Amino acid sequence: MSAIDHLLHANVSYAKTFPGPRPLRPKLRLAVIACMDSRLDLFGALGLDIGDAHLIRNAGGLPTDDVLRSLALSQRSLGTREVVLIHHTECGMQGFDDVAFRAELASESGHEPPWDVPGFSDIRATMRTSIAVVRGCLWIPHRDDVRGFIFDTATARIDEVLA
Amino acid sequence: MSAIDHLLHANVSYAKTFPGPRPLRPKLRLAVIACMDSRLDLFGALGLDIGDAHLIRNAGGLPTDDVLRSLALSQRSLGTREVVLIHHTECGMQGFDDVAFRAELASESGHEPPWDVPGFSDIRATMRTSIAVVRGCLWIPHRDDVRGFIFDTATARIDEVLA
Repeated sequence: MSAIDHLLHANVSYAKTFPGPRPLRPKLRLAVIACMDSRLDLFGALGLDIGDAHLIRNAGGLPTDDVLRSLALSQRSLGTREVVLIHHTECGMQGFDDVAFRAELASESGHEPPWDVPGFSDIRATMRTSIAVVRGCLWIPHRDDVRGFIFDTATARIDEVLA
Repeated sequence: MSAIDHLLHANVSYAKTFPGPRPLRPKLRLAVIACMDSRLDLFGALGLDIGDAHLIRNAGGLPTDDVLRSLALSQRSLGTREVVLIHHTECGMQGFDDVAFRAELASESGHEPPWDVPGFSDIRATMRTSIAVVRGCLWIPHRDDVRGFIFDTATARIDEVLA
C-alpha cells in the first residue's frame, strides 16, 4: 500500500465518529498561521474543535503574500478577528539557503522561481518580524490581536514571543 | 478569556501526552495541500500521526506559487515523494469574486494586492486543474504520485477526483 491508500482506509473510520456539519465561519473567530512541519498537529496542540479556526500553513509559517491573501479572506469574508502565528524549534527554514535553492531550481528547470522567501537563523527575531508584517498589512482589517508562539517539537509546549 | 488564552490552556494538557521528538523528515514521505477551512482536521481525517506528513494550507487549497515553494522544499530538502491535494464542499473560494475583492482592497488601502487567485465554481474541475499545475511544475522532482480528493464537510468522507 502507498501512503495515500493508508490514508483512505483511515478516513472511513474517521467519518463514523465525525460530528457532522458545522458553520463555514470559524467559531472562535481565529486564524492560525503555522509551519507545514509534520510534528505540528494544530487541533491537538491548541485544543481546537472542528469548525473553530482557519489553519494557514506553509514552509516556515511565514507571512508571505499568499498567507496574507488567505488571512484577508479569512477576516473580510469569513469573520475571523484574532491571529496566532506559530514558528517552531528544529525548523527546515532555519539556516536554509534560499538564494542557493532558487539558483538550483533555475539552473535545473530553466525558469527562475517567482518567490523570494529567505531562511532564518534566530527564530524569536523572525517571529517578531512576522508579527510586524501582519500588523503592518493594510489589507487585514483586524490587527490588534496578533500573537506569536514558538512550538517546541520535543515537548509540544508553545512559548509566547512578545513583539 | 480571548480565544487565544483558551488555546494556551489546552496546550498544557496536550503536552502531557505528547509522544516526544520525531524526525524532521516526514515518515510517510507525503505532503498534503489543503484548504484552511476550519472543519478540516487533517490528522483526524487522514489518520495521520505526529511526524507523518507535511501539511500546506491556504484559502482554497490551491497550488499558488507559495504552495509550490513549500512543496519544492518539502521534496528536495525533506524527502517527501507523494502529494495529496484536498479541496472540500462548501468552500469560501467557491463563487468567490476575486476581482471585486482585490479592487476593494486596492481602493481601501491605496495598494494593489500582488496576488491573483480566482475563485471557482466547479470544484471537481478545479481539482483537475490543481493536479495538472502540480504535475506541470518543473521545480517539483516527484510528480508521479499526485492525487486529488474532495472532503465532504458534512460527512468527513474524501472522494477521489481522477485527473
